[in-house]
Amino acid sequence: MKTLFSEENSVQAVLDRLGQCEDPRVKEVITALVSHLHGFIKDVEPTMDEWFRGIDFLTRTGQKCDDVRQEYILLSDILGVSMLCESINNRKPTGATEATVQGPWHAEGSPERALGENMCDDGVGEPCWVEGRVTDVDGNPIPGAKLDIWQTNAEGDYQVSSHDQPEGNQRAIFRTDDQGRYYFAATLPVSYAVPTDGPVGELLNSMGRHAMRPAHMHFMISAPGYDGLTTHLFVDGDPYLDSDAVFGVRDSLIVQFASADPASASSRNLPAEHVQVAFDFVLTKAG
Amino acid sequence: MKTLFSEENSVQAVLDRLGQCEDPRVKEVITALVSHLHGFIKDVEPTMDEWFRGIDFLTRTGQKCDDVRQEYILLSDILGVSMLCESINNRKPTGATEATVQGPWHAEGSPERALGENMCDDGVGEPCWVEGRVTDVDGNPIPGAKLDIWQTNAEGDYQVSSHDQPEGNQRAIFRTDDQGRYYFAATLPVSYAVPTDGPVGELLNSMGRHAMRPAHMHFMISAPGYDGLTTHLFVDGDPYLDSDAVFGVRDSLIVQFASADPASASSRNLPAEHVQVAFDFVLTKAG
Repeated sequence: MKTLFSEENSVQAVLDRLGQCEDPRVKEVITALVSHLHGFIKDVEPTMDEWFRGIDFLTRTGQKCDDVRQEYILLSDILGVSMLCESINNRKPTGATEATVQGPWHAEGSPERALGENMCDDGVGEPCWVEGRVTDVDGNPIPGAKLDIWQTNAEGDYQVSSHDQPEGNQRAIFRTDDQGRYYFAATLPVSYAVPTDGPVGELLNSMGRHAMRPAHMHFMISAPGYDGLTTHLFVDGDPYLDSDAVFGVRDSLIVQFASADPASASSRNLPAEHVQVAFDFVLTKAG
Repeated sequence: MKTLFSEENSVQAVLDRLGQCEDPRVKEVITALVSHLHGFIKDVEPTMDEWFRGIDFLTRTGQKCDDVRQEYILLSDILGVSMLCESINNRKPTGATEATVQGPWHAEGSPERALGENMCDDGVGEPCWVEGRVTDVDGNPIPGAKLDIWQTNAEGDYQVSSHDQPEGNQRAIFRTDDQGRYYFAATLPVSYAVPTDGPVGELLNSMGRHAMRPAHMHFMISAPGYDGLTTHLFVDGDPYLDSDAVFGVRDSLIVQFASADPASASSRNLPAEHVQVAFDFVLTKAG
């Protein structure tokens, strides 16, 4: 006879049922899940009404998802789970660029642009020059590295989630030159709110938290023989750096977007007044 | 400056954000949730692919829900969470009838039937007589107690979830007489499978678990001045008593459905060959 369920032995009663589980990873995950889930329930002792509100929240979170909106990723993000998983999967040696969350707004098939081109197609926003190198941890340049870059428009909206932007706006794929250099024009990133019209917005509100993300530009960098790197560059001085709704900020990714020398404007095909940022991405060799 | 997120201090980084939370219960629940959720992630160290499979599972579980089907309650059930919450909310003194899970198939507005009537309207199944009393813990009868009763038909389907049964089939509301007695005709409960055509079915399968519930009849009993009681009676001898997919079985709720004396058949308006069960429900005084 297996263990009958009781409040005291609830975890064991559930785990006793894994005797026919053939996948050791499933067994490992479920064992940890049941232990922590029952631990949570025992800590908070929900009323049946609270239990049902939890069921309802989880249900509505699933039902808010569609082809573009992913409310469960957002929930994972605002509880620090996405960032924790990213951290676990991207433990980097000293000197390598740190990773941060990918977020839900990356899209495949961004336009390939030549080095020096502008990824802002709608002409709105504070002009910005971005440059640097992609290297290995010893500082050797990585030619031909692919940089898949995306950010919001000046209104704080990603092109993939809004209908009124030109296709491919603020999205680009660049490739480093033979000295591992990359350079392109864009606009200064702006801070914006994650979507708050769903269950996750209600949760943020009930926790007394805002929904803002500090201004940032997304980079997904890949090169043969190296580990892929998914990260952001954050704008130093942003008021939300210490309260990013999705916990993506790392000190090493906060960079100065400073006023550029007007003399550089013509070669960059930018107005005299623009900002610039320089950052070198350091990749680790693939395991 | 608040704590910046890192793998080591991930819990604190999230909890630091609760400074503006005005609801102490929300603060308590989120604190426990984040601690256990991050503990789970740190124990299993999911790959990003596993993380996304988790996101996808949670999303599909929400999207499987509709007006009748509640896949998240089912998930809560098969992980022992529903039964744990019921246990926490229904700690009973010795002698009181134990509670078990309500399950998703209760419906309001079941037909009021007179004592002795048959709640099986489709005439299919092994005839069964059910009788007993509703009392307080000192054995005093509770007249006028309401018994809201439901079970599956002989095929293992609840009327509320199937379209081919008469409205109200295998559902009834009875009220105890002035001596606290109840008695009615029905059919012997049968074991059945919880729904397996959704994400929860996939999960049961990957855990090597079956989806069966041992045969049982649901009771929701209420009387003014007493705590409500939601419970089952289980059929002794059922092969799934020690492996109920939703962990609802308690020793004290397993009862003998035995062959009845054929001489009792006419007064019960049942065939000579039928089974019978007797059970007294003991309610606790409302707090």
